[in-house]
Amino acid sequence: MKKLFAEFFGTFWLVFGGCGSAVFAAGYPELGIGFVGVALAFGLTVLTMAYAVGHISGGHFNPAVSLGLWAGGKFEAKNLVGYIVAQLIGAVVAAAALYLIVTNKSDFITIGGFAANGYGDLSPDNYSMTAALITEFLLTAFFLLIILGSTNARAPKGFAPIAIGLGLTLIHLISIPITNTSVNPARSTSQALFAGGDFTSQLWLFWVAPIAGAIVAGLIHKTLFDKE
Amino acid sequence: MKKLFAEFFGTFWLVFGGCGSAVFAAGYPELGIGFVGVALAFGLTVLTMAYAVGHISGGHFNPAVSLGLWAGGKFEAKNLVGYIVAQLIGAVVAAAALYLIVTNKSDFITIGGFAANGYGDLSPDNYSMTAALITEFLLTAFFLLIILGSTNARAPKGFAPIAIGLGLTLIHLISIPITNTSVNPARSTSQALFAGGDFTSQLWLFWVAPIAGAIVAGLIHKTLFDKE
Amino acid sequence: MKKLFAEFFGTFWLVFGGCGSAVFAAGYPELGIGFVGVALAFGLTVLTMAYAVGHISGGHFNPAVSLGLWAGGKFEAKNLVGYIVAQLIGAVVAAAALYLIVTNKSDFITIGGFAANGYGDLSPDNYSMTAALITEFLLTAFFLLIILGSTNARAPKGFAPIAIGLGLTLIHLISIPITNTSVNPARSTSQALFAGGDFTSQLWLFWVAPIAGAIVAGLIHKTLFDKE
Amino acid sequence: MKKLFAEFFGTFWLVFGGCGSAVFAAGYPELGIGFVGVALAFGLTVLTMAYAVGHISGGHFNPAVSLGLWAGGKFEAKNLVGYIVAQLIGAVVAAAALYLIVTNKSDFITIGGFAANGYGDLSPDNYSMTAALITEFLLTAFFLLIILGSTNARAPKGFAPIAIGLGLTLIHLISIPITNTSVNPARSTSQALFAGGDFTSQLWLFWVAPIAGAIVAGLIHKTLFDKE
Repeated sequence: MKKLFAEFFGTFWLVFGGCGSAVFAAGYPELGIGFVGVALAFGLTVLTMAYAVGHISGGHFNPAVSLGLWAGGKFEAKNLVGYIVAQLIGAVVAAAALYLIVTNKSDFITIGGFAANGYGDLSPDNYSMTAALITEFLLTAFFLLIILGSTNARAPKGFAPIAIGLGLTLIHLISIPITNTSVNPARSTSQALFAGGDFTSQLWLFWVAPIAGAIVAGLIHKTLFDKE
Repeated sequence: MKKLFAEFFGTFWLVFGGCGSAVFAAGYPELGIGFVGVALAFGLTVLTMAYAVGHISGGHFNPAVSLGLWAGGKFEAKNLVGYIVAQLIGAVVAAAALYLIVTNKSDFITIGGFAANGYGDLSPDNYSMTAALITEFLLTAFFLLIILGSTNARAPKGFAPIAIGLGLTLIHLISIPITNTSVNPARSTSQALFAGGDFTSQLWLFWVAPIAGAIVAGLIHKTLFDKE
Repeated sequence: MKKLFAEFFGTFWLVFGGCGSAVFAAGYPELGIGFVGVALAFGLTVLTMAYAVGHISGGHFNPAVSLGLWAGGKFEAKNLVGYIVAQLIGAVVAAAALYLIVTNKSDFITIGGFAANGYGDLSPDNYSMTAALITEFLLTAFFLLIILGSTNARAPKGFAPIAIGLGLTLIHLISIPITNTSVNPARSTSQALFAGGDFTSQLWLFWVAPIAGAIVAGLIHKTLFDKE
Repeated sequence: MKKLFAEFFGTFWLVFGGCGSAVFAAGYPELGIGFVGVALAFGLTVLTMAYAVGHISGGHFNPAVSLGLWAGGKFEAKNLVGYIVAQLIGAVVAAAALYLIVTNKSDFITIGGFAANGYGDLSPDNYSMTAALITEFLLTAFFLLIILGSTNARAPKGFAPIAIGLGLTLIHLISIPITNTSVNPARSTSQALFAGGDFTSQLWLFWVAPIAGAIVAGLIHKTLFDKE
């Protein structure tokens, strides 16, 4: 139960901090944080909560991560459902909090894309479904290689949250223009629920591609790197 | 006494560095540091002084942090008043130093908002009092979850100042447009004293919301996470 | 073999992440990540993969690094060819993946410079061949001094990936306007292959200067610093 | 002798990287790194070389740091002259390298301010001599408090280069608009030599204020914090 609370709070923070920075601060005139700031924010949500509750739950905050760790032999199948449900609840509650704040702006008109993920017409820079599939697959695969490698028994102790958090920053630096960057089905689901419209019908890709990438990476790590 | 000096210097640095970067460098034409730079500056004040004097005083630099740690069972009530007074003095002396520097500009006209915190008409992006209350409450609560979690006996040793400092950076990346970001009543008080006007009459919120968030987080940590 | 896979994945990530951030995200209108974001991305590719697979292969991801470590007495000559081939394959496959993604943009016209390195007319800010030679030589030399120093037995344990990764970020902060920053012949080769034209005829410089700098630094480290 | 080489290389890197990023990359149209990038570059020069050669020389790279450590009882007086001479030579050689590169630009006209420090008419944002004195004094004092605190026996081991390097980043985030940020007489001297004109006649301030701040901080640390 303690672990599920840790995953709930961690995923809340990932969505509230990452998507919140995009919604509130990215496009502020002249002084706004832009994609660099949003990339930094997403990464720091994971860095901070991995140090805060990583010793409790492992600090996944992402269904693709839980599945990739399972494929890599580092997480038990029986815990998958609980973790993923806690992650989804955390993400949706965070999106609701963001909604509550953004609608309490005196000049509020619309929530817009609400930092949801998309491809084709909903890609920030007009990338196709194919480009989105390749990108989300590859980036989630490398995210898992970083997670599995930096938490390996032979890696330096205590540094994994830095590698993993800044790895997520890097992933956003590359791909916000392509899909608004998911690599995390929970984060995509919560934002699509509020953004609605075509964002919902495109949601499948942000479950399929990240999970496929994560599982392939788990198998690569287990086969190539995690043996004597 | 040594501890109180550490808190004095740490809170001086937080206000001088964080608010100073906002006052001097955020809006410099073309090359200015923007909200990303200010967010980084605030976080690095805490990261640096937590490594420098954290082993002396614990490195709070913030009345809400002292109260949250007390609520979480990690700080003795008898030390609260001394710490908070030292923090307030540090913050006000830093604001005075900033005032002295900014008025020694040959084209000086006004100190403007002086990086003070506000809501409604004084919110950088027109967020209401309700939005400000929710935001400051939630962000300070997560700040304390990060502090309590990363300094816990089971977390990796020595990394807490990185998690906490960059956590404060993250908090600013999210919320500068909403309230100019407080999560710290000392920092709000010092700037409101110099900015004057409605900033002073709005100061209550930046004591109430951060302290409430910090205490709730202290109780959550004690109840959910800090037991075998 | 395990080591060669580690070098393959690491160099793939360096090119995919570093050059990818430049191609996809640097010049996005208003919100783009600029040279700061690209510099951060390159550095984080190395930081993340050095924590993930550094304990397997040493985490070179760069022929100049392998040669510099050999000159410094930290890498065996017999492994040089294998490492360099694995690095080149990783870089070229990554460039192919970037090509596949960028051509799947609905408004795709041309890949442009594709983050390739150049001097003279192909320097982002019109620096001559002489300036490019000096810059690439000096920066790769210091990159190797950082690598050899921070991985030395007397340096603090576990921090080298932070020093090395952020060292590469620093190198990009200095020199993107000069040569688009190489310090890595594999990264230059993969991009020149796709960019074509004069980028290919200038490729020699981005083998000669980085390798010369790396070898000189290896000898400096061995002679001046690496003895009792 | 080994120590003096370490100080020579470290200070070369500080000036080449910090001032180089300002000269080459800060003002590049649209994509330039701005003051945030320059601040990051200065800090990373120290972070990287402190990990690389800190275990050899202590990693001062700055006459004010050597004097502040002496005042704090952590550095022997007999080594002061050697260290400061090595630092000055490193800084001047780096400025010469920058000069060589920037004059090898096909559209070269003038080196301009060459990242030199100044006040009054030479302050980037018109701050007076008084503002410059206060700022350089305070910032160098806190730089030394960070250095002395984070390298103290009771601080976490191995993290000091992160605190010190990012502390220098923070210092630049605050004060580039005021004096172009010195806190380092070697860095000011090398740039003033090449920039010439009034920059040379203002150089005294960037020796007096940083050294005074460093010595006061050394005494504060010794008196208040460095005892049982």
